[in-house]
Amino acid sequence: MLSNHLSDGIGMARVPWSQLPSSEEPEGLSNVDDELMAAARSLAGVGAPVESLDYEVIENYAYREQQAQKGKIWFTYTVMVKWFFALLIGVGTGLAAVFINLAVENFSGWKYTATFSIIQHTYFAGYLVYVLFNLALVFSSVFIVTHFAPAAAGSGIPEIKGYLNGVDTHGILLFRTLVGKIFGSIGSVGGGLALGKEGPLVHTGACIASLLGQGGSTKYHLNSKWLHMFESDRDRRDLVTCGCAAGVAAAFRAPVGGVLFALEEVTSWWRSHLMWRVFFTSAVVAVVVRSAMSWCKSGKCGHFGSGGFIIWDISDGQEDYSFQELLPMTIIGVIGGLLGALFNQLTLYITKWRRSYLHKKGSRVKIFEACLISVITSTISFGLPLLRKCSPCPDSEANPGIDCPRPPGMDGNFVNFFCSKDKEYNDLATIFFNTQDDAIRNLFSAKTFHEYSAQSLLTFLVMFYTLAVVTFGTAVPAGQFVPGIMIGSTYGRLVGIFVVKFYKKLNVEEGTYALLGAASFLGGSMRMTVSLCVIMVEITNNLKLLPLIMLVLLVSKAVGDFFNEGLYEVQARLRGIPLLESRPKQFMRNMTAKEACKSQQVVCFPRVVRVGELVSTLRNNQHNGFPVVDQGQNGETVVIGLILRSHLIVLLQSKVDFQSSPFPCGPRGVLNSHKLSDFVKPASSKGKSIEDIQLSEDDLLLYLDLAPFVNPSPYVVPEDMSLAKVYNLFRQLGLRHIFVVPRPSRVLGMITRKDLLLEENGSSATMELQSSSVRGQRYNEEMLRSRIHPESSILDSLLIQK
Amino acid sequence: MLSNHLSDGIGMARVPWSQLPSSEEPEGLSNVDDELMAAARSLAGVGAPVESLDYEVIENYAYREQQAQKGKIWFTYTVMVKWFFALLIGVGTGLAAVFINLAVENFSGWKYTATFSIIQHTYFAGYLVYVLFNLALVFSSVFIVTHFAPAAAGSGIPEIKGYLNGVDTHGILLFRTLVGKIFGSIGSVGGGLALGKEGPLVHTGACIASLLGQGGSTKYHLNSKWLHMFESDRDRRDLVTCGCAAGVAAAFRAPVGGVLFALEEVTSWWRSHLMWRVFFTSAVVAVVVRSAMSWCKSGKCGHFGSGGFIIWDISDGQEDYSFQELLPMTIIGVIGGLLGALFNQLTLYITKWRRSYLHKKGSRVKIFEACLISVITSTISFGLPLLRKCSPCPDSEANPGIDCPRPPGMDGNFVNFFCSKDKEYNDLATIFFNTQDDAIRNLFSAKTFHEYSAQSLLTFLVMFYTLAVVTFGTAVPAGQFVPGIMIGSTYGRLVGIFVVKFYKKLNVEEGTYALLGAASFLGGSMRMTVSLCVIMVEITNNLKLLPLIMLVLLVSKAVGDFFNEGLYEVQARLRGIPLLESRPKQFMRNMTAKEACKSQQVVCFPRVVRVGELVSTLRNNQHNGFPVVDQGQNGETVVIGLILRSHLIVLLQSKVDFQSSPFPCGPRGVLNSHKLSDFVKPASSKGKSIEDIQLSEDDLLLYLDLAPFVNPSPYVVPEDMSLAKVYNLFRQLGLRHIFVVPRPSRVLGMITRKDLLLEENGSSATMELQSSSVRGQRYNEEMLRSRIHPESSILDSLLIQK
Repeated sequence: MLSNHLSDGIGMARVPWSQLPSSEEPEGLSNVDDELMAAARSLAGVGAPVESLDYEVIENYAYREQQAQKGKIWFTYTVMVKWFFALLIGVGTGLAAVFINLAVENFSGWKYTATFSIIQHTYFAGYLVYVLFNLALVFSSVFIVTHFAPAAAGSGIPEIKGYLNGVDTHGILLFRTLVGKIFGSIGSVGGGLALGKEGPLVHTGACIASLLGQGGSTKYHLNSKWLHMFESDRDRRDLVTCGCAAGVAAAFRAPVGGVLFALEEVTSWWRSHLMWRVFFTSAVVAVVVRSAMSWCKSGKCGHFGSGGFIIWDISDGQEDYSFQELLPMTIIGVIGGLLGALFNQLTLYITKWRRSYLHKKGSRVKIFEACLISVITSTISFGLPLLRKCSPCPDSEANPGIDCPRPPGMDGNFVNFFCSKDKEYNDLATIFFNTQDDAIRNLFSAKTFHEYSAQSLLTFLVMFYTLAVVTFGTAVPAGQFVPGIMIGSTYGRLVGIFVVKFYKKLNVEEGTYALLGAASFLGGSMRMTVSLCVIMVEITNNLKLLPLIMLVLLVSKAVGDFFNEGLYEVQARLRGIPLLESRPKQFMRNMTAKEACKSQQVVCFPRVVRVGELVSTLRNNQHNGFPVVDQGQNGETVVIGLILRSHLIVLLQSKVDFQSSPFPCGPRGVLNSHKLSDFVKPASSKGKSIEDIQLSEDDLLLYLDLAPFVNPSPYVVPEDMSLAKVYNLFRQLGLRHIFVVPRPSRVLGMITRKDLLLEENGSSATMELQSSSVRGQRYNEEMLRSRIHPESSILDSLLIQK
Repeated sequence: MLSNHLSDGIGMARVPWSQLPSSEEPEGLSNVDDELMAAARSLAGVGAPVESLDYEVIENYAYREQQAQKGKIWFTYTVMVKWFFALLIGVGTGLAAVFINLAVENFSGWKYTATFSIIQHTYFAGYLVYVLFNLALVFSSVFIVTHFAPAAAGSGIPEIKGYLNGVDTHGILLFRTLVGKIFGSIGSVGGGLALGKEGPLVHTGACIASLLGQGGSTKYHLNSKWLHMFESDRDRRDLVTCGCAAGVAAAFRAPVGGVLFALEEVTSWWRSHLMWRVFFTSAVVAVVVRSAMSWCKSGKCGHFGSGGFIIWDISDGQEDYSFQELLPMTIIGVIGGLLGALFNQLTLYITKWRRSYLHKKGSRVKIFEACLISVITSTISFGLPLLRKCSPCPDSEANPGIDCPRPPGMDGNFVNFFCSKDKEYNDLATIFFNTQDDAIRNLFSAKTFHEYSAQSLLTFLVMFYTLAVVTFGTAVPAGQFVPGIMIGSTYGRLVGIFVVKFYKKLNVEEGTYALLGAASFLGGSMRMTVSLCVIMVEITNNLKLLPLIMLVLLVSKAVGDFFNEGLYEVQARLRGIPLLESRPKQFMRNMTAKEACKSQQVVCFPRVVRVGELVSTLRNNQHNGFPVVDQGQNGETVVIGLILRSHLIVLLQSKVDFQSSPFPCGPRGVLNSHKLSDFVKPASSKGKSIEDIQLSEDDLLLYLDLAPFVNPSPYVVPEDMSLAKVYNLFRQLGLRHIFVVPRPSRVLGMITRKDLLLEENGSSATMELQSSSVRGQRYNEEMLRSRIHPESSILDSLLIQK
């Protein structure tokens, strides 16, 4: 009785699969890959089309052939090219960053110089010039984005994060996106909107890396054949990781922060040998940026100067802190968590609304929207300081280091704006009517007690927070780092003012509290930890504040996590980018793999398939991977591998493998017909679709033998493995398809640690290797025949036959 | 013809496995897990026994039952306990570090105070006191290690690295090791040997973490039941990672460096949500250490002071550098690579020799050896400065900040030792006759041009290098960081002297070159990149040197990699710890999984096995995992899972599952007999062995049904997957066993990204989940019967039957 049930369970494995409910119509079955994404997309309104990336090595015949041919020299060459590319990415990103900074600072410099010189005469003309200057820049930015590079809008970090998680959003890594990002962010940042250039720089770095990886832009004929090295998604991913790190390193002049950002925030996987290369890229960026800055020091670059790259040196800030101060610091953390979470939520709603209503109406609405926001921002930043009463300058004898009011044409604190007396300054103008970099520097500045009134800071906080929320999601390149630092440092300084007032301690610096506030807001919004901490330390150049920054980040992230996800996760979800978190959900432990894929049906192809059938199946579904099964002697089926839609389309397009016989072809026909590079997916992610394929009626009647083109060894899991384990496999190896298969009937061997410790020389395995690698065409027929023994692998036996 | 061969290949899957050459004697087959390790061990001489760890979730019945019972509250509780443990690890490691530093500095302080006061009268008596003091400390250290905690010898980092790579070395994480490490390193460092306390601190942190994870030490009755939370190797691994980071954070007061060290150097895998916890632990350590130091500031802690923790503030060092200087810096990198690689090679030879000849002779030889080295070290460090002529002090008017000679009882430069005149100092004594921390501080010091003569530095370099090589591998706790920094900063300062001489630039600081030298030697020896860079920046508190440190590290690592592996890899290999590198070797791409395990044979158990057979099989081999197969209706076999040796031993010991019937038992018998915790491996890694099991003759005739205890879903790979892909799977998921199985006959489903994006609520999968989780015993029989439908998983059908 007992064994009856048991054998039921096991015997099931023997039920012909045509009788199972899920396999009644083998050709009508479907494995859905992109339906959910389509659903997510429709939920999210418009949104760019997304596609999964394939980080798995497709070990098809062409790959094996290439591997067998390549020797040690090829390997060394590859490594050298990879390092050379890391160098190029560093140099390219560094130069792009220098260019953007140069342009932004010069535009801003001209703008403020012109405005300040005009307001000596009339404020209204100054206002007009200021508004028009900003409007022109913002218009150029939004025009470039809407008409030339739509993927350049926003920060780009959610998309890059998605890319490295395994989801390709169309168009994010194109050459036009790169151009749009660079020029667009010059316009949007130079135009004084409440956004930053750091996110776009990360995207720029990733674009440069990706373009290098594909050997340039094909569309614009800027590509070079000999650079065609990186043919798998995997290699490109490594390059894009380097590019991300380079972007952060360039944006913040924080090389270590860049490596950590790439590691913690962006990538979903990590290999320690890659760290070394990423590190190198960051170092190159640091050197490039530094060299450019020292070259510009003599004034060759206009307004671009040492203050150019955001680096707010507060090394003369607060050195020591008492335990008493931990309370206000914790409060800063809590405020950061709350405001950050609120920011994420508000931007989510606004972006949703924008996508559903506003942006559907076309480019004109987008342009109008950005221009309107520009005018509003200019008006507020010009108008509000006018309403503010000026404060008298601090006593210059008691504070010898202070220059008040600041001389015209200089950066610094104590801006004289609409002040009636000479020895007065406008504290609101100091932060509002200024570039954001300078404003932050002023907020962080030490030894400037009571420079800002609580009223001004509060006004600024409310207005700027609102502007940042509203600006988020317009069709311009926009980073959230600098606005976040602005918001955070404002309330941080506010708390600092109260601490100075109540604790009555002299060694408390308001600037230090501003820094902690900045860290807390970024932590509460972006939810980064180590990388943010290192970036904050690197940009402020003060290591002593590290424990405090850590504390504030811990609190703000914990508070923020209580309410919602991080900014990039929220935005990625909104854009229909299905990110996989690093750990499986708890309930997955109680689910099996089979339960997870019960709702779908699998579309299988036989080994030799009629072309017409292939085409109709491809047309009838959107799935990207198909198992290929073949019949054994006794009518049993065996799975010989996985074929990708993109590979099928390549085969259908080239037509050279079509055959009239419905039986498997010999190796002669296929061995030289395709190289690995034929199957390389174009980096633009929009390969040919099945609709592009034109086949004659005659072609449709021919057959195609899929065996040489399948990936013969996709990862498989037994049907009753828990979904949590499957999740780990999928996520950690960056897979796209996993086969759920019945329990195996026997174990041919066990792989343990020792089997993987083989040395190339001196192990018997090497001998085996020589004879079993796929180099069929070099052997004569007898050699070939002798190799077909029962133990040779199935793929080999498929390929090497007469 | 063609299809003939094909069907041969496929039909092979149908050959009954008893006919395959590798399975003629199913019971006599063997899957070797530890033979290579035994071989490695014999190669390495003695060496502690090692065992693979199991980071995979064993989804046996007990686990499934536990998972089904635990709700959200349990999950929240677990998370809270994990954070609480991170806090405890931080506090514990911080306190241990403070204690070690306090003791070392006080011992050293007393030693030097006594010696300096005696040498005012007679140098010989001073020498004797110095030697004896050192000897006593070293003797205590080596005595503790040899007689109490043998696993505490050395730095411990290779073992911890191995642990986190998946190899458990016996005894490294015991309570006695912790005690031995703490007190041993006080003795060895206080005794003035050429070694540091940083490696041991990392080991200390890991021990504390591991002991917390197992709820205290069982042997010393310090354990607590309610802390028994972390029952899998996986959870313990997370804790040990936190411990490592805490150790580095405490040793260098470098919290970010600690996180990165744990990430880059130690762990073999990484999950980004763990980073957050590791970061928290480091932050706690920083706060603890800081608080202790500020508490001690008032002089309550004797000689322990602000200079205690190695942190060599060179924030007043060189600010700027010219491109000209890149050449000498590159040279420093090359020297570092060469000397580092040489160090690794020499220590390898010496450790080999020591293991093969010296240490075989027992503890006495080890004690004698350490004492001899102590006497030699003392003699050299006391004697050599005697031979050196004193130099006149620099002009005190031109250098107002310099105190020369240094007042007695103070730390600092310009030691007056065996000088005839008052206004003289002995440059060799300043670095040699001093604690290493002070010596490094002196070498790094800025504004001290020409303090050291090239001759002195060269003498010191040669002598100290030799001492460091000879001391490496003695039976005392020993870190290589501080000796490395000593060696590196010496030749760095040498190069600096030449740069000052030839470039004739005033803003060149010899101290900055010393720092770069230190970075280069560590890079050349340990081959770390990002973490070392951050540690160097954090201990010198100078961010501006970051690009230079990066450059030097890149060069030295590249040069070193040309010759050999990193220090820890070399040492791990020597100790028979089979580390898996992060990437598969190139030739593995051309090998299949089956080829890799061809040499071994698989020992399988049937589902119901006779106890006697089980015992004899376990006695006859050393393998740790066995596939369990069962017979289907038609005599076909099906693999129902993997059973671990350790679990079998638990079953054999408890005897409650023995049955007289040779048929599978019903679920009643087993459901409540074992809890998950019964199968937990003791953290000491020396569980029961099969030799400890005593069974009567009657017992041996009984049967045991293994089905409820197997891991039903080990990871499987098809036989012809390339070994490179298998390697990635094994390495990235931290596995211990992978089954190599024949190609599947069909695909039941495909798992793609969308299947893993399930939400717990609102998905149809949740409903399935409720009915298929293993909670058999709560259902009545009818419920049970209704669940046995053909689609239920095999394990369930095995367990839930009458």
